[in-house]
Amino acid sequence: MGFSEEQVIAVLAEVFSSQDPRVILGIGDDAALVHGSQQQILTTDIAVEGTHFRIDWSSAYEIGRRIAAANIADVLSMNGRCEYLLVAATLTGNESIDWIRDLAQGIQDQASEAGAVVVGGDLAQSKTLSIAITAIGNTDAPIRRSGAAVGDSVYLSSLTGWSAAGLAILSKGLSTSGAAAANALNEYRAPTLDMKIDFSAATSMSDVSDAILIQGEQMAMASQVRFEFRCEDIESTPEFSELSSLAAEIGGNVFDWILQGGEDHALLATGKDLPGLLIGNVVEGSGVAVVRNGQEIKMAPVSWSHF
Amino acid sequence: MGFSEEQVIAVLAEVFSSQDPRVILGIGDDAALVHGSQQQILTTDIAVEGTHFRIDWSSAYEIGRRIAAANIADVLSMNGRCEYLLVAATLTGNESIDWIRDLAQGIQDQASEAGAVVVGGDLAQSKTLSIAITAIGNTDAPIRRSGAAVGDSVYLSSLTGWSAAGLAILSKGLSTSGAAAANALNEYRAPTLDMKIDFSAATSMSDVSDAILIQGEQMAMASQVRFEFRCEDIESTPEFSELSSLAAEIGGNVFDWILQGGEDHALLATGKDLPGLLIGNVVEGSGVAVVRNGQEIKMAPVSWSHF
Repeated sequence: MGFSEEQVIAVLAEVFSSQDPRVILGIGDDAALVHGSQQQILTTDIAVEGTHFRIDWSSAYEIGRRIAAANIADVLSMNGRCEYLLVAATLTGNESIDWIRDLAQGIQDQASEAGAVVVGGDLAQSKTLSIAITAIGNTDAPIRRSGAAVGDSVYLSSLTGWSAAGLAILSKGLSTSGAAAANALNEYRAPTLDMKIDFSAATSMSDVSDAILIQGEQMAMASQVRFEFRCEDIESTPEFSELSSLAAEIGGNVFDWILQGGEDHALLATGKDLPGLLIGNVVEGSGVAVVRNGQEIKMAPVSWSHF
Repeated sequence: MGFSEEQVIAVLAEVFSSQDPRVILGIGDDAALVHGSQQQILTTDIAVEGTHFRIDWSSAYEIGRRIAAANIADVLSMNGRCEYLLVAATLTGNESIDWIRDLAQGIQDQASEAGAVVVGGDLAQSKTLSIAITAIGNTDAPIRRSGAAVGDSVYLSSLTGWSAAGLAILSKGLSTSGAAAANALNEYRAPTLDMKIDFSAATSMSDVSDAILIQGEQMAMASQVRFEFRCEDIESTPEFSELSSLAAEIGGNVFDWILQGGEDHALLATGKDLPGLLIGNVVEGSGVAVVRNGQEIKMAPVSWSHF
């Protein structure tokens, strides 16, 4: 309250300070100056309080980690390494300097874990708190959405649905205990990025920001094929029974969480003999289907956001 | 009203479509893929309705041009060329598809004039309309804020103050006529970038986004020198009398407009025998001063934004 832009910038410059040799000129001039790459990945994501996060549901630190993770995941999904982040935030003036420092620290720690440096940003006043992050990365061998081929299998880097489970717990105002609930809340508040999985042999890839069914449909459309997700495969993944028990406990639908939840930022990939979790296969046709015993199961329609 | 994200993305993909050879993969995947450079410039700016622009004062097209111009100016001020833009916008849902198309077209036209391509973006819903743009450029010889030396002169690429004059006209609700008023309104609504001036021999440079006195003070501090702006020099610039007449007509202070107005995005540079408008010189000391007949004139303090 009543802090100046100068004060905030001083705090941010301290949190984001770096001696990374890739950065020629960091925060403090009109722009940052860095060493670029021949195949540069560029992506931006904006998160709005009330829509993408709630300050009463997550700490500033978790919000920072989460938004940084969402951006970094887009770089990972191109088979890339994230190098630089820029952060443009609108503040309401009701935040404290400590809250802003924690937000910045969350971004910084997630960036650092991914090998990236925060090199610049901008601040503005608004009635609505929002954070736009741009991630810049590089790759030697980009993997697009459009390379899935009939005969490929469909893989996840880790089981999705945990973030949706966490959201369900918070939305319903449940007081839960146990490891599964704690994991769900953690994944909602600050999703874990699957940085160690080797999907470099994937034929197509995307990160699950919206939902497997949405990202799967986009990949299927780009590749002119059909994605079939098999319930039996999903049920045999290691974490399924734990997530399923949590769903039973709090009255959620585990397949809705896995297939239609989002914000886990796991990687969805196609290919042959990939690591990770086998959850389906690529067939002739178009669109996506969920099958059990070879029969398609009707799912509630997944819709895009409406304004 | 009631449009889907899918519809908006289709419109944006059309407006921003490009066959530019620098772009390997444009809008439509998880991220864009472009050819980067050894010395890459990165900068981001966010503009908020009500704070940075008003939808009743500017058309969507002008707002788009203006925000793109603000970002591109940061690249120019590093002695760079802008190559790529990413746009992250929050929409309220009260915009029409046509308004959004015009906004995008404004961004696209300003980008195109600067030789840049819009390669990606993101959309979210919010109570507040905001637009964050990230600009990526390159340079062979970056010019920082910190290189000003005692004995240098201070130059502007073009006279500032026109945007502040336009803002004064709109704030006071004046109905004005004449070329000067029209120019002021145009510069407020969609500032002209000084892309043709050759400031490559400058010792320090910044764009005037806030105010000459603010940018001058930042450059003086970074360079450990003092900037003196001379009223006599400013008065002898070609457009001064026109702007001064407009100030007299509408009851504004022409020096306040020039020195304390902002958003013109002219370039402020130091060096010897540069093109552009000579407006002062670099001396020993610190901070900035406005002088007439060698005597310092007191100016109202320039403050940073407060939250």
